[in-house]
Amino acid sequence: MRAVVMQDSQLRVDEIAEPVPGPGEVLVDVLACGICGTDLHCCAHGPEFNEATRGAAGVELMDLGQPVVFGHEFVGRVVSYGPDTQQNVAVGARVVAMPILLREQPVMLGFAGTDAPGAYAERMVLSEPLLIEVPDHVSTEIAALTEPLAVAYRSVARGDTTPGDVALVVGCGPIGLAVIAVLKAKGIGPIVASDFSPERRKLAERLGADIVVDPAEGSPFEQLMAAAATDDPAEMAPPTAVMGQLPLRPTVIFECVGVPGLIQQCIAGAAPGARIVVAGIAMGEDSFVPGHGILKELSIRFSLYYSPEQFAETFAHLAAGDFDVEALITGTVGLDGVADAFDRLKDNPHDAKILLNPTIGS
Amino acid sequence: MRAVVMQDSQLRVDEIAEPVPGPGEVLVDVLACGICGTDLHCCAHGPEFNEATRGAAGVELMDLGQPVVFGHEFVGRVVSYGPDTQQNVAVGARVVAMPILLREQPVMLGFAGTDAPGAYAERMVLSEPLLIEVPDHVSTEIAALTEPLAVAYRSVARGDTTPGDVALVVGCGPIGLAVIAVLKAKGIGPIVASDFSPERRKLAERLGADIVVDPAEGSPFEQLMAAAATDDPAEMAPPTAVMGQLPLRPTVIFECVGVPGLIQQCIAGAAPGARIVVAGIAMGEDSFVPGHGILKELSIRFSLYYSPEQFAETFAHLAAGDFDVEALITGTVGLDGVADAFDRLKDNPHDAKILLNPTIGS
Repeated sequence: MRAVVMQDSQLRVDEIAEPVPGPGEVLVDVLACGICGTDLHCCAHGPEFNEATRGAAGVELMDLGQPVVFGHEFVGRVVSYGPDTQQNVAVGARVVAMPILLREQPVMLGFAGTDAPGAYAERMVLSEPLLIEVPDHVSTEIAALTEPLAVAYRSVARGDTTPGDVALVVGCGPIGLAVIAVLKAKGIGPIVASDFSPERRKLAERLGADIVVDPAEGSPFEQLMAAAATDDPAEMAPPTAVMGQLPLRPTVIFECVGVPGLIQQCIAGAAPGARIVVAGIAMGEDSFVPGHGILKELSIRFSLYYSPEQFAETFAHLAAGDFDVEALITGTVGLDGVADAFDRLKDNPHDAKILLNPTIGS
Repeated sequence: MRAVVMQDSQLRVDEIAEPVPGPGEVLVDVLACGICGTDLHCCAHGPEFNEATRGAAGVELMDLGQPVVFGHEFVGRVVSYGPDTQQNVAVGARVVAMPILLREQPVMLGFAGTDAPGAYAERMVLSEPLLIEVPDHVSTEIAALTEPLAVAYRSVARGDTTPGDVALVVGCGPIGLAVIAVLKAKGIGPIVASDFSPERRKLAERLGADIVVDPAEGSPFEQLMAAAATDDPAEMAPPTAVMGQLPLRPTVIFECVGVPGLIQQCIAGAAPGARIVVAGIAMGEDSFVPGHGILKELSIRFSLYYSPEQFAETFAHLAAGDFDVEALITGTVGLDGVADAFDRLKDNPHDAKILLNPTIGS
């Protein structure tokens, strides 16, 4: 079968062996797969990423000695089952799944080799217990957004975000936009969103941002403070040590960029008592001023992933039409177009989520 | 009256005017006051501290153009009331209070000038609504520990710490020791505590640490992991993205030192999903590796102060005998001994909390 493989930071379309579903596994045709910023990052900076996961968790995410097949934001169609399966989902049905193979040594789908390919391929195997059937009324394209929305769903949960909070989303790439959609669906607002790109600010508005800011022209943090202002003591955030009771509602900031220096910008700009959720992935060393965090009693919550329950809840919301996310999809390519799509996503602010459809042009 | 005043980073005993209680205020004789690490810090690095509070909160903590009277961990005896007071606490009764004057422009007691002196003085004024009467069975010395214990009480609350967690306390100065006492009272354990000083490790054991570590000889984080190990899936912390389900109970780390680099040591050493409570106060820029925080989905909660309710709850626990903290007190001095006590606390690891008793040697 055909697949996009990554080796030595290069993408190429190659013929690889079709994977064979093991016990408890199922073979699916890939119908769609989102191209994720993490894929771009792992392609360009694979060794650094591995070093970071080894430093943080003692394991390397990828085996860079062999070709890697990316793709962890997928929709598939059931082709056949391996041994020891329940087969409750019919052959031919569409499915999404959390991108893990539940083997004795779990496999992170989308970061493994050609023996357990991610969805940049015509077919892949999934673990049957994780399958979620996609009902007819949900398009394949929308279903392919489940994974990035689950990341955003987790981020919003990590912020203990509730109605009554005022939110700032820093960076309107796919994750920032997905966070906006989840916040909107949860009735949290006003939502302030900031991005240097006018196209992305427009997308942010379409997804639910109430106030958009170009950080080249004004401070998103000042806009957040203005949006959080209140005269009603019942709405105000609890008093803080140094500043006492401020006429501000509680605030939560989502850092969805992942470049050095931005966490400290959030720390410096945050209101006392604010929660900062870091969803942007920056590797390497960064600097910050703990004294600002202390004096304002901030909390910083890093967010990366989601639980199986959060993945399933996210899909349920998506299927119920709770997230108005169609605007996130800004392009579709075939296997031969993935390398170009990587380049587009690096440079072109018009793009948010580009989907791979392996049945195109093959 | 006599008071210890700080000016240009120097302490001296001086005669100052006795403060006059305004509306809603009460004059007390100071019976005891703990010497706090923050006092040492504000004496040695006042301008830097002011710069930090200005940067973080837009206000300077101290007016360094005039003498400052420190002392915010106090016990007083009621002398007389100002106008517009209820006078429910009898003249002659002992009291503790959150160190704030509830004036139109609130005053942080212990960081203001001679017109609203802190407790490094023979007398001070307090706000009547904040008075908590000290019952006869509670000694003045133990009551003087209310404030640092309230700081620790808040830190433990900021960690969302519950039985089932395994805790590491990094640094066994007064705040670290107080955190240990609060954790112990809440039934949280095992408690791992680390400090370079053998005297402080001994104090940590007396206050309730189950395992003490000399960081020069072994990693406190490895000891934490060992203490958190469990075979029971019901006790384990939730699974994490990169490492899956680990055989570890949930962990919470208290950073109670406040020197640059230590927050990153905690980030690097923490188990996936850990909460890090930063109670140590370090000023200036520091470095960290956000990728470690992301990949392990850590959360970092800065903790500085306490609410009036937390101060009152802390005193209630203290009066009930819940905190076994007598070992914290390692010395008592008069007004003339405060400057020497500052030097001792800088250099001598035998000392934890030194109390000022203004009635000694005056």
